[in-house]
Amino acid sequence: MFQSFENPSSPETGPPRLAALRAAMADADLAAFLVPRADAHMGEYVAPRDERLAWLTGFTGSAGFAAILKTEAGVFIDGRYRLQVRSQVDLDSFTPVDWPATKLGPWLAERLEPGETLGFDPWLHTAAEVERLEAVLDPKEVALTPCENLIDRIWADQPAPPAGRARTHPIEFAGESSTDKRARLAGMLRDEGHDAAIITLPDSICWLLNIRGSDIARNPLLLAFAVLHADGAVTLFVDPAKLSEVTLDDGVTVRPGADFAAGLETLSGKVRVDKNTAPFAVAATLLSAGADVVWGQDPCILPKARKNVAEIAATRAAHLRDAAAMIEFLAWLDDTAPSGGLTEIDVVQSLEAFRRAGNALQDISFDTIAGAGPNGAVVHYRVNEDTNRPVNPGELLLVDSGGQYLDGTTDITRTVPIGAPTDEHRRAFTRVLQGMIAISRARWPRGLAGRDLDALARAPLWMDGRDYDHGTGHGVGVFLNVHEGPQRLARISEVPLEPGMILSNEPGYYREGAFGIRIENLIVVEEAPALPGGDDRDQLCFSTLTWVPIDRRLVAADLMSQAERDWLNAYHAEIPGLVADRLSPGAADWLEKACRPV
Amino acid sequence: MFQSFENPSSPETGPPRLAALRAAMADADLAAFLVPRADAHMGEYVAPRDERLAWLTGFTGSAGFAAILKTEAGVFIDGRYRLQVRSQVDLDSFTPVDWPATKLGPWLAERLEPGETLGFDPWLHTAAEVERLEAVLDPKEVALTPCENLIDRIWADQPAPPAGRARTHPIEFAGESSTDKRARLAGMLRDEGHDAAIITLPDSICWLLNIRGSDIARNPLLLAFAVLHADGAVTLFVDPAKLSEVTLDDGVTVRPGADFAAGLETLSGKVRVDKNTAPFAVAATLLSAGADVVWGQDPCILPKARKNVAEIAATRAAHLRDAAAMIEFLAWLDDTAPSGGLTEIDVVQSLEAFRRAGNALQDISFDTIAGAGPNGAVVHYRVNEDTNRPVNPGELLLVDSGGQYLDGTTDITRTVPIGAPTDEHRRAFTRVLQGMIAISRARWPRGLAGRDLDALARAPLWMDGRDYDHGTGHGVGVFLNVHEGPQRLARISEVPLEPGMILSNEPGYYREGAFGIRIENLIVVEEAPALPGGDDRDQLCFSTLTWVPIDRRLVAADLMSQAERDWLNAYHAEIPGLVADRLSPGAADWLEKACRPV
Repeated sequence: MFQSFENPSSPETGPPRLAALRAAMADADLAAFLVPRADAHMGEYVAPRDERLAWLTGFTGSAGFAAILKTEAGVFIDGRYRLQVRSQVDLDSFTPVDWPATKLGPWLAERLEPGETLGFDPWLHTAAEVERLEAVLDPKEVALTPCENLIDRIWADQPAPPAGRARTHPIEFAGESSTDKRARLAGMLRDEGHDAAIITLPDSICWLLNIRGSDIARNPLLLAFAVLHADGAVTLFVDPAKLSEVTLDDGVTVRPGADFAAGLETLSGKVRVDKNTAPFAVAATLLSAGADVVWGQDPCILPKARKNVAEIAATRAAHLRDAAAMIEFLAWLDDTAPSGGLTEIDVVQSLEAFRRAGNALQDISFDTIAGAGPNGAVVHYRVNEDTNRPVNPGELLLVDSGGQYLDGTTDITRTVPIGAPTDEHRRAFTRVLQGMIAISRARWPRGLAGRDLDALARAPLWMDGRDYDHGTGHGVGVFLNVHEGPQRLARISEVPLEPGMILSNEPGYYREGAFGIRIENLIVVEEAPALPGGDDRDQLCFSTLTWVPIDRRLVAADLMSQAERDWLNAYHAEIPGLVADRLSPGAADWLEKACRPV
Repeated sequence: MFQSFENPSSPETGPPRLAALRAAMADADLAAFLVPRADAHMGEYVAPRDERLAWLTGFTGSAGFAAILKTEAGVFIDGRYRLQVRSQVDLDSFTPVDWPATKLGPWLAERLEPGETLGFDPWLHTAAEVERLEAVLDPKEVALTPCENLIDRIWADQPAPPAGRARTHPIEFAGESSTDKRARLAGMLRDEGHDAAIITLPDSICWLLNIRGSDIARNPLLLAFAVLHADGAVTLFVDPAKLSEVTLDDGVTVRPGADFAAGLETLSGKVRVDKNTAPFAVAATLLSAGADVVWGQDPCILPKARKNVAEIAATRAAHLRDAAAMIEFLAWLDDTAPSGGLTEIDVVQSLEAFRRAGNALQDISFDTIAGAGPNGAVVHYRVNEDTNRPVNPGELLLVDSGGQYLDGTTDITRTVPIGAPTDEHRRAFTRVLQGMIAISRARWPRGLAGRDLDALARAPLWMDGRDYDHGTGHGVGVFLNVHEGPQRLARISEVPLEPGMILSNEPGYYREGAFGIRIENLIVVEEAPALPGGDDRDQLCFSTLTWVPIDRRLVAADLMSQAERDWLNAYHAEIPGLVADRLSPGAADWLEKACRPV
């Protein structure tokens, strides 16, 4: 079982650790010290060694940071974690701060005096973050000083860094050799007059070198640093033992991870650094060694986002395998849930078991969200033993989950009624479905960003006076991160959508205290075929990757247009041919019924 | 008749004028001189005195500029004018340049040598324009020098500045006294620590002082400059004779227009200047006098855009009056056109006559676009005696027009079939209508900009592989400019929509060489009423101002959803009650048929 259901809350460990940190701060003459939930690779998941925020405060959410002052300790958390933080931290010692309504810089500026010093670990904050802080604190004459990580100094039993073995990501899934990728990106560097680029994002490194790692949970990443030189050579900084099962191409030189700073010091000329992803220490080290730091995006990000034909084919295969597991699960759920007795944890365990059954599952791609009734309205809900709830007849169950397979990463949400749904369930579900179909069917002129399409997903809800408070979709990798940039379907996304980009399409609707609905398929951007009678315009469209029935019992067909019903019926009509031969007889039978036209 | 149909093309006057300009440039030691189609108020229309571009080159389009070098003269025009310019200028002397594909700065930078000087009239270019040019020319060591206007020096019979009389805009239409507006805006200036704001946009001045002018065609503007002081006082720079019919509030001091520069020199402290609308000379004069120039938007722009209850009520009255004229016109057209013999000019003349019939029309709000058959596909088509075309049975006729009334400004487009439409006409029209209805019906969370809604208007066309190459809507004033910022429904508009903003809603479809379709209503942003079963969300919606039937013969009802048909039928059902008692018996009869349900 990948997922665990412990509630690791232990507020009582916080105060003595906070006292020890403040003693270390006094030793270092610091008035403040920052403790982010981050490692040097700025990913969504961190290794146990890097769970400094949780160790210090007790707060285990996936995002947040603490700012420790002499007499106050702010724990900055977003709306998802407003309740959780209060149960996990000692509220006499720690003060939850609503972020981003309250921003770190102004909060610090109000509390620090001129001449005081704020310490931070230069490997755990990006240059952009430090720049934003400086803009607020410099006028106050508060100094920002990079320093040793004081948590590491006082955390006696801090875990060792992860030592997971990497493996080769085969060319039939990658579609392009590392040699070719390195040559292609090196050409881009030369075109811009750059001598080298620093790569600190593990998924960029894994993509560039056609390897996958096992250093952290959920995402198959190798934690490492790399320098891409303008001749296509790569220096990879990582413990060589992690590479024992990997054969790297000529042109990739491996040096121990501890040598990374020393390696930076040997660079000269124009060195590209990504201000938004590279730790502050990277540019600082380069500058002190005399290199010319040029801010620019990690050169892997856009090429990685534009999946090639082999990557899309691999992902399609992973999605069909995952669809079979989901269909077995949904058939089981329909058979089991109405008689009562199931809990959310049962649901998560059963779903993981169905995914594991084929022995292809490498990991789940994130902790499954299984929210019954009112828990479905908690957008980032993760069940644990304290919150576990029976799946009651008459309620909706929202299940958002995914798998990591060697050939691809999946992410799917289905919402199902346990027993008979209400009219309100059906109306809300249908509005969400209409938005999800609008995105699935969309064609648009090349050049638009996710922001330009977001309204299509929301308009059916808007017309009912409803909306949802999250993006419509995020980028997804291929046996890599399930949340991958830069493309998104969201009001804040200005990145043009390009062929090969994989996105989730997941509108939702949440009624607090009552139910949650979300319907999610993964989709990939393609060039749209010309239409008879249409203009000679360059249009893009989406192709669907996910093939799992959408619950017909929740569809109010009379609220939908003919075109929407046609889309749904065509989607369902295609599923059995793609998936049925992978199913048990019972699930195949269930599928046939689930795919009947509305 | 407001509209004229002369084609003022006279390419032969260009070469001698160009030679005279080059002689003046040599006298002034200039290697280049800029001739924009602009006055100091940066409006869409200019007075005859300011038609320097047309006088020099022969090109009479509503946008463009010339850059005159010693041996080359570039006339920069956008896509609308690519054909027109070639018929209007002497191509041996002038070189049409595709703008904005080719930008002025780089074009000049390629042609000018280090040490050479580019002259420009500092009253005809904004500070932002000059800044953009400097960014490109400074590295080339080309000097940008403000200078006397060399066209004015050589244009012997240049017309005098306009001397139109202004009138009071009554409080029942304005809804807020000038005293109150000035106090409100002065408070905003004080909040930002500004001592004064310079206002150079005539529509801002007209709005602020509750006056309207008659200095230029189509828009009821008084050409003037103003300084709004932080105590609410205004200094208005304009020929006092133009104000003989106006009583201004206490607190408004009038000085001759020629004193404006001298008036600027008396200002001190922080003076707000709008970089994007104020001439370069404004900030330059202030800076040389020692004032502290602060860039900021003209303080009237947003308050003017948020129409108050009285302004919206006045606009509604103007729209009903205009609707009656449009309906008389459409009834006449239906009666007259099918038998043949009508031309586009006949259509324009007839429509203007119907608008004039009630004696309330002050002007048309822009030159009527009446495009029959293939001329309908020319988006900014203005018929003249050379292009005039018969309105043939079997074709579509697109008519885009509007009126200026004392209580409001209208802008409406209807597309009608002459005789029987084809299936392709009906399909394209219906797709356009679906987009127009999607905007009309939309509800959305407060805070979104036009960009965020634009896709709703286009999606029905996109799904057919079609699109249109213009914005979906522009802001509109109340007895002011028919094109008014800052709000727009367009991919490039980031300005949040706010209650009271009036916009056009005008998707279209154009098939080159065949037909053009556009359907346009004006709409106003309102707070959306809560819906039963909806969330407690703050939503906005549009309310329709325009009440003229949309041609049912072009509606393919089977392509529409029930909700779309319901909107159209409800719209049509409301029109007779609003307008019928203003109509002739024949038109009332026509209206009854035109408003039957689809």
